[in-house]
Amino acid sequence: MERQDRLIFVTNDDSFSARGFQVALDVAREFGRVIAVAPATPQSGRSQAFTMYDPLFLDEKQREEGLEVYSLSGTPVDCVKLAFDYMLTSQRVDLVISGINHGSNAGVNVLYSGTMGAAIEGSFYGVPSIGLSLTDHDADADFTAAKEYARHIVASVLQCPEEQRQGLCLNVNVPDIALEEIKGIKLCRQCRGVWHEDFYRNEDPRGRAYFWLKGGFCNCEVEADDTDEWALSNGYVSVVPVQVDMTAYERIPYLARVLGK
Amino acid sequence: MERQDRLIFVTNDDSFSARGFQVALDVAREFGRVIAVAPATPQSGRSQAFTMYDPLFLDEKQREEGLEVYSLSGTPVDCVKLAFDYMLTSQRVDLVISGINHGSNAGVNVLYSGTMGAAIEGSFYGVPSIGLSLTDHDADADFTAAKEYARHIVASVLQCPEEQRQGLCLNVNVPDIALEEIKGIKLCRQCRGVWHEDFYRNEDPRGRAYFWLKGGFCNCEVEADDTDEWALSNGYVSVVPVQVDMTAYERIPYLARVLGK
Repeated sequence: MERQDRLIFVTNDDSFSARGFQVALDVAREFGRVIAVAPATPQSGRSQAFTMYDPLFLDEKQREEGLEVYSLSGTPVDCVKLAFDYMLTSQRVDLVISGINHGSNAGVNVLYSGTMGAAIEGSFYGVPSIGLSLTDHDADADFTAAKEYARHIVASVLQCPEEQRQGLCLNVNVPDIALEEIKGIKLCRQCRGVWHEDFYRNEDPRGRAYFWLKGGFCNCEVEADDTDEWALSNGYVSVVPVQVDMTAYERIPYLARVLGK
Repeated sequence: MERQDRLIFVTNDDSFSARGFQVALDVAREFGRVIAVAPATPQSGRSQAFTMYDPLFLDEKQREEGLEVYSLSGTPVDCVKLAFDYMLTSQRVDLVISGINHGSNAGVNVLYSGTMGAAIEGSFYGVPSIGLSLTDHDADADFTAAKEYARHIVASVLQCPEEQRQGLCLNVNVPDIALEEIKGIKLCRQCRGVWHEDFYRNEDPRGRAYFWLKGGFCNCEVEADDTDEWALSNGYVSVVPVQVDMTAYERIPYLARVLGK
């Protein structure tokens, strides 16, 4: 397929003004026409959330040959839904790119991440979707390696046959090290882990107590060498293919016995 | 274990003032002391979202023998995190109940649901967690059947041995029919399905266009008789055990070949 015949949708969770979003737009433009809808404000940790109780406002931010960028006053999933169910209903979209996120979405973060929420949502529309993250929260993070690997992964996915692209969703994380130090790409499984939160408690100017969440991730499988956390700690780009059946099949027989009524 | 020795944590996504939340409190109190933290405002569709960028305010709503109820200005997951990582750090919690939700959380809704977001979060703390939903959005829905089945499922889970309770998370949905018409409980898998959204477009009083999401769920497996959607359509209470490994293992070998670098 020729570049001009391809349409790529781009979104993220750090908002349209994030540096990683501009990098994603640059990568996407190498492969096709680009339409992007990104949140108007940062939406990290917004998961698969969507907006039921409020109206959403859409603003055009940029328009030039082969590129349209909008901001939306909602979540990353809202951006995907509005794009696919309102703006692009008559167009074939070839790929969804969500990111490039500032910060890791490895392990259980796939559940909390707005970046991955949008990528999962994209895959619901049958479009191959890639969530991209760099394990560096800094607003001025160096995206050199992330951009290089994003380009390689996008090219590879676009060359996959239709049956492999259908419903594909990738959680890609790039370690925060120099491009030449990265050892390559590892296909991994999602690491088991949990967040241990801490709450900062203080009083607002009117004397009312408030709490502010600050937590740390705890890898529960430090020994395993087939997880995304292992790959990142050992200098690899981690790629976890994502699916959405959350059924704990192995628990069904026992529960069927004890819950039977 | 005696009732007074047991501690049950209750939350939901429809807010502390929802009718279904009161029903959940009533059920929980039959089995133990209850501490509840529920969102101050409705949080349907909030998924696993948590709040990073804003302080959270906690208000005591009710305190009597064996019951404390608080509201929190955050998401359902924030309620669980604040409870387990701040309020209850020195106490053993025996069960988390999230709900009873007004509206179905069957099928792919497990990903979008704030009710299930909170239940999944509870299971991360090693506590058996039950998300309860009634397939009726009405604020005045009849919770008679939901309450009866909630009681039965809570009693059954509390009697499970420790190794079965560890990390247990259940997505329970009760059909909107009379108690005597319900045929029983079915242990099921999560039905494949997607939302087809529609966007209502209008102009606000200042002439600015806004969009408002309204969608419908589409069951992609109408023939299958082992899904939660089938159970609900056929007069059963559906119970899906939930796990959080979203790795699409079957895709790894092919992707390892094409993405290798």
